[in-house]
Amino acid sequence: MDERESESRHRVEIPPSKPWSKSLQSSLKETFFADDPFRQFKNKPISRKIVLGLQYFIPILEWGPRYSFEFLRADLLAGITIASLAVPQGISYASLANLPPVIGLYSSFVPPIVYAVLGSSKDVAVGPVAVGSLLIASMLGKEVSPTENPKLYVDLVFTATFFAGVFEAALGFLRLGFIVDYLSHATIIGFMGGAATVVCLQQLKGILGLVHFTHSTDLLSVLRSIFTQTHEWRWESGVLGCCFLFFLVLTRYMSKKKSSFFWINAMAPLTSVILGSILVYFTHAEKHGVQVIGHLKKGLNPASESELAFGSPHMGLAIKTGIITGIIVLAEGIAVGRSFALFKNYHIDGNKEMIAFGVMNIAGSFTSCYLTSGTFSRTAVNYNAGCKSAFSNIVMATAVMITLLFLMPLFHYTPLVVLSSIIMAAMLGLIDYNGAIHLWNVDKFDFIICISAYIGVVFGSVEIGLVVAVVISLLRVLLFLTRPRTLLLGNIPGSMAYRSTEQYPAANSVPGILILGIESPIYFTNSNYLRERISRWINEEEDKLKDSPATDLQYVILDLSAVGSIDTSGISMLDEVQKSMDRRGIKLALVNPGSEVMRKLGRSKFVHKIGEEFIYLTVGDAVNGISFMLHSHKSKAVQSEDVNIGNNIV
Amino acid sequence: MDERESESRHRVEIPPSKPWSKSLQSSLKETFFADDPFRQFKNKPISRKIVLGLQYFIPILEWGPRYSFEFLRADLLAGITIASLAVPQGISYASLANLPPVIGLYSSFVPPIVYAVLGSSKDVAVGPVAVGSLLIASMLGKEVSPTENPKLYVDLVFTATFFAGVFEAALGFLRLGFIVDYLSHATIIGFMGGAATVVCLQQLKGILGLVHFTHSTDLLSVLRSIFTQTHEWRWESGVLGCCFLFFLVLTRYMSKKKSSFFWINAMAPLTSVILGSILVYFTHAEKHGVQVIGHLKKGLNPASESELAFGSPHMGLAIKTGIITGIIVLAEGIAVGRSFALFKNYHIDGNKEMIAFGVMNIAGSFTSCYLTSGTFSRTAVNYNAGCKSAFSNIVMATAVMITLLFLMPLFHYTPLVVLSSIIMAAMLGLIDYNGAIHLWNVDKFDFIICISAYIGVVFGSVEIGLVVAVVISLLRVLLFLTRPRTLLLGNIPGSMAYRSTEQYPAANSVPGILILGIESPIYFTNSNYLRERISRWINEEEDKLKDSPATDLQYVILDLSAVGSIDTSGISMLDEVQKSMDRRGIKLALVNPGSEVMRKLGRSKFVHKIGEEFIYLTVGDAVNGISFMLHSHKSKAVQSEDVNIGNNIV
Repeated sequence: MDERESESRHRVEIPPSKPWSKSLQSSLKETFFADDPFRQFKNKPISRKIVLGLQYFIPILEWGPRYSFEFLRADLLAGITIASLAVPQGISYASLANLPPVIGLYSSFVPPIVYAVLGSSKDVAVGPVAVGSLLIASMLGKEVSPTENPKLYVDLVFTATFFAGVFEAALGFLRLGFIVDYLSHATIIGFMGGAATVVCLQQLKGILGLVHFTHSTDLLSVLRSIFTQTHEWRWESGVLGCCFLFFLVLTRYMSKKKSSFFWINAMAPLTSVILGSILVYFTHAEKHGVQVIGHLKKGLNPASESELAFGSPHMGLAIKTGIITGIIVLAEGIAVGRSFALFKNYHIDGNKEMIAFGVMNIAGSFTSCYLTSGTFSRTAVNYNAGCKSAFSNIVMATAVMITLLFLMPLFHYTPLVVLSSIIMAAMLGLIDYNGAIHLWNVDKFDFIICISAYIGVVFGSVEIGLVVAVVISLLRVLLFLTRPRTLLLGNIPGSMAYRSTEQYPAANSVPGILILGIESPIYFTNSNYLRERISRWINEEEDKLKDSPATDLQYVILDLSAVGSIDTSGISMLDEVQKSMDRRGIKLALVNPGSEVMRKLGRSKFVHKIGEEFIYLTVGDAVNGISFMLHSHKSKAVQSEDVNIGNNIV
Repeated sequence: MDERESESRHRVEIPPSKPWSKSLQSSLKETFFADDPFRQFKNKPISRKIVLGLQYFIPILEWGPRYSFEFLRADLLAGITIASLAVPQGISYASLANLPPVIGLYSSFVPPIVYAVLGSSKDVAVGPVAVGSLLIASMLGKEVSPTENPKLYVDLVFTATFFAGVFEAALGFLRLGFIVDYLSHATIIGFMGGAATVVCLQQLKGILGLVHFTHSTDLLSVLRSIFTQTHEWRWESGVLGCCFLFFLVLTRYMSKKKSSFFWINAMAPLTSVILGSILVYFTHAEKHGVQVIGHLKKGLNPASESELAFGSPHMGLAIKTGIITGIIVLAEGIAVGRSFALFKNYHIDGNKEMIAFGVMNIAGSFTSCYLTSGTFSRTAVNYNAGCKSAFSNIVMATAVMITLLFLMPLFHYTPLVVLSSIIMAAMLGLIDYNGAIHLWNVDKFDFIICISAYIGVVFGSVEIGLVVAVVISLLRVLLFLTRPRTLLLGNIPGSMAYRSTEQYPAANSVPGILILGIESPIYFTNSNYLRERISRWINEEEDKLKDSPATDLQYVILDLSAVGSIDTSGISMLDEVQKSMDRRGIKLALVNPGSEVMRKLGRSKFVHKIGEEFIYLTVGDAVNGISFMLHSHKSKAVQSEDVNIGNNIV
């Protein structure tokens, strides 16, 4: 290596070491403030900062002053449209949670108002969610029966809602919103599909007009419960249910075909309720096996802060239920908000949304509401109806308020079977076959995660499905880090690039030099594997070269471009690889270690051990440098060569 | 882009899709048979395959026939040397596990013979290990008192040993050996240091001659137990203990200074036992507060298979103890075997070693032995004494057998305080200050893991320490995948390479083009973060460009070289990034996706969406291609440009 060449070479320096406190600070910032929320506050006078801060925490202060009459007209229309969906849905979902129907309406009154003030999405419409309702019923129902001890059950539901709110708000305040990301896309598809299946099965109770029904949610218990009481099935109820279900599914299908027909879908539940009630009122079907809602208490939400069961022996259960249901409905709400924000190309802040959802649920638990979140169906209708801001939530709340104050008697004759049909129709839309097929086509492992979640929910319970899916998702990630790919690299003809010979069969290997790429960070999880794998590559290469006595393996180049990070186990591994190669007379060279990797290699003296001159910027540089050494010496005595190289460079 | 240029460009093709079964098979092979154990069987006649197979499972068949007289001489010397360490160590560690001392000797007889037959290491010497002994005592002692119910306690120890063996062998057979890798280097340093501290504290009982002592292992309980009974301290015992401790530490120090003095260290424990026994015999110190071992039963290991407590109500505890202690001593044994194999440059097969350790413990549990593994101290002495094969274990076992048959009465007067000193001296060597300092210097996070393990063990319990350390290690790995680094890349002057502008301040950015590198696989854990981070990069770049109206941001290049894998959440993220950039009039280009990433991008139609011509092999290619487009049009109307580009290329 002559003077000229060693000068033109690009060196990989050990980056200057940052103080520990500084690097900690920057990594904390990247972890918790990845979206840089303080960016807008920079270089502003203090008064402006206060205004911005208030607007940050209370978004209505930000968009309220800019609110125009045109927006109002759009929001009025959208709000009334979602109210017509919200009333029957509220009643239905409350019954899914084994709660008195009126609580479903309460929950569509206070929380939407709170969200309108605090939420940062323009499209999200809030209210009770099906999966959350089901989860509450199945988790709390295990310890307290809603039929035998209704007062305690309702109190526990409020308590769980309170803790769900506290947990959600805490996640937001502590900027731990990324925990929601751990529910992957595949998990959510499988989990939602499973929950929808379970909810549909539960509705068979209503559709078949059964009075007794299992409290379990798994497929086998439900089927057993249904088929052991075939003599209790009521055909009147069944026929009515199937008709309404058909009507609802048909309207959804139509509105899907043409998006300007969205209002058909939005109005269908209310239409069903009205039709069903009229039918029952005139035929007196309630005396022929068709169960009806019955008397509903008029009036707005009563205060319920004194009913929170803080001292109860079931407190632990309420906390657990709150946390699990809280995070799940939060995931749904955030996902819904993000999707629609993407359509309209604005940004929503996940952590801020969590605080909004959390405060909304805390406020709800004080005013006889149960768990609410941003719901997919209402939000979709809201969006299609042309909403412009969160004000449509206030319009919806006002409509619900009017219902609560004056229209409650109208629901007396509403048949339960219509509610079951509404729930079932909504649930059928949540089973995302196409999503699952897409997963199968694109990523088999994601499909496995999805199916595990589905099977876990349907045959086990909602919690089992969730835990199974999250664990498998994490195992997949860990598996990647436990068995990372190592690639044999070769030169792409006509370029300086070195790429995997498997992906680019045209890539040429360099005689006497083995070039390996490592495709993941080197951590304790994979350092033993990588050591063995590298030695296997070397063995295989030596076996290959046995037949051609002209060249033998003299250099191994490790391309660290894809190694984002390394820990001490990884450094020990490199150390051991280098030692064992030394013994076999092979020299190790590294290519393109990142700044963190380079810093740690420097601190652990590994750079010193392999020689700074054996760390190259690109594989091309490394091959050039090494080929030069190989040719200028043409000696197989590696040791004497090493000395020569050392002399030339130092 | 003219004909010539588009021909010279290297295309990134979608790799031909492999059948699902084939890719599953290859990934299973890489996961479970990473070391390719069948390699040696390839292309061999069937009879040779049978011989090789037997030799694979029973390594003694492989090295036995080649065994020479020279090897025998070396192994005899090494075996006798380790026996002189094994006898006092066996007695000491048994008392650490609250077992009768003779069980420690039994455990140095049968297991070494089994290991000699099945083990693949030439250096490992087996026997009871300190941490395993402590763990057994602390886990089983919680439910069954060794003083009040000694028979049941011993039976449970055998049962736990049996399950430890079954678990270890199962890990080996199922080729799940990589689970041991999850105990990272840092975890083991902290854990061992903590366990050694705890064991030392426990020895204060023996050194101070205390009769009553706490069963807890945490620092506070032990200190309370010691300082509440200061009046019970026996100075005779204390003086004797300190003298022997000093002697033992001194000999270790000497042998560390000069490795040819290794025998001083190896003989020191036996010397201490002999000196201590003689001293007590002549001074009748056993009547002055110096406790002695007392009567020991002569004879070889009695059978104990009928004593395994399979029907006992403590069965669950025995299984749990077996699994936890099994995996910990296994990790120690494997690590020891690997380290010494590295010194002598031979390969040991982790899974085969696990089977050997497992069978050894199962056999042990049938012959009154408790948990054994490859121990660091014995192996180091064995290695230094020049052992050549596992035969030195058989020599040691024979020496222990002779002790069991004839020499037991000699230990009658051995003072317990000597045993305590032996344990303490051994433990002091396990506290690896320098290792911890090295962790602090190289990798702060590994240091945190190490210290958490230490604190968990010392202030909580051995299990707490272990769980805390493993959880933190995994969190660190997950954190990397949750908040991966994204780098701003620039051109290194005088080369075609694009590298991080932070690491290489000389790197130049390209006007109008933002080049970003992603440093980890794109998974659900980070897809939301990456979406926000990329949009923040774009915002920052646009802010920067605001002042220079000449150029605005028209292209973003994502370098996927370091993205080893992607899941469907990741693909959705790219999709959303592309859509939102489209709306801002910015075009996305990808660089160097690996074969798996490319295949998934192809299957999900993403390649189609961004246009195959916008996927480049190198950043250099991408910049050239895009600069060409930028200059040949000089128009800011991105849409018309897009159409043009499409026309030129298709």
